[in-house]
Amino acid sequence: MQFSSKIIEQAVDTFAQLPGVGKKTALRYVLHLIKQNDTEQLAQIITQLKTDLKFCNKCHNICESTVCDICTNAVRDQSLLCVVQDYRDVMAIENTGLYKGLYHVLGGLISPMEGVGPGHLNIESLISRTTDGSVKEIILALNATMEGETTSFYLYRKLAPHNVNLSAIARGIAVGDELEYADEATLGRSITNRQPFSTFFSVK
Amino acid sequence: MQFSSKIIEQAVDTFAQLPGVGKKTALRYVLHLIKQNDTEQLAQIITQLKTDLKFCNKCHNICESTVCDICTNAVRDQSLLCVVQDYRDVMAIENTGLYKGLYHVLGGLISPMEGVGPGHLNIESLISRTTDGSVKEIILALNATMEGETTSFYLYRKLAPHNVNLSAIARGIAVGDELEYADEATLGRSITNRQPFSTFFSVK
Repeated sequence: MQFSSKIIEQAVDTFAQLPGVGKKTALRYVLHLIKQNDTEQLAQIITQLKTDLKFCNKCHNICESTVCDICTNAVRDQSLLCVVQDYRDVMAIENTGLYKGLYHVLGGLISPMEGVGPGHLNIESLISRTTDGSVKEIILALNATMEGETTSFYLYRKLAPHNVNLSAIARGIAVGDELEYADEATLGRSITNRQPFSTFFSVK
Repeated sequence: MQFSSKIIEQAVDTFAQLPGVGKKTALRYVLHLIKQNDTEQLAQIITQLKTDLKFCNKCHNICESTVCDICTNAVRDQSLLCVVQDYRDVMAIENTGLYKGLYHVLGGLISPMEGVGPGHLNIESLISRTTDGSVKEIILALNATMEGETTSFYLYRKLAPHNVNLSAIARGIAVGDELEYADEATLGRSITNRQPFSTFFSVK
């Protein structure tokens, strides 16, 4: 693509670094911004993302102070930890309204293909949270992908020596799904890990 | 969507104003930026879009001075104007390398559905460019859509009284297309507006 203006070229190149954004989409964004009156707001909020946002010292969730609202909430069950990949998963689980424990955000998944090893993730701090004995159960809530399962298994090996119950979120047929379209792996696990019918509709 | 941080919520809302961006995509962009080290560049270039970019006084193209490089280029044919919708169309035509005249950027198309009337477009300045007699031909290069054709027809009515040749870019079968998949309207016009074979491969 050839641009008549250096600034537009720079802007397109910068926007094209956003995930899933190519040069054509970037140009669409840039031309939209040129037409807008109030672009200062976008520039300002991007700066704020760096200056005002912090990561919680305890669970590494995104927050605006040193410890996040979830960790400081005394009503929540301090003995229950849910390990998730990133902030979006915290949001997703919070939106269910069914979880009242704390979180631990790993900041990614082990992926040799993308060069992410255990050292890049918040695993050491997870282990150190289990040492004082206040945590009774850790729920692994990671993606049901190759990377997610690898990370779950790595955490299982690391956490097993500690005095803590380890569990993982249930894999099975999604609510609303039809059996005939489910893949074999999912259907197989849903049969192997079948649940007593009495717990089926219970909400903790 | 519920966010634990006001700043993230604001950032998502602001990004979601970009064309074709929903809240999920906006959140993806925001989380990407939080992970990035250098977000200042994006904030800076967005500010620059407003401060350093101007619209050419003559053709309304985006540029960095009062008159754009195309209008000031003495080698280009000053008697030929190509009317386009926006900056992207200038880029597209420039990329063909086959047009050596000047441009006139309308800044949109007449669209009653979207509340865009002739008064919102750079039509008055187009007409005033034709009054001194220096422009011999105006090529209408607008989209082959309802809005594009409406605008072309409006411009035709406005420009007809002036002493200027009006033409429109050819509609027909796109290069590489197969006839059997062409729609009737396109195929019909390509037969009605058939060209002498001798001009077929000529390049001006």
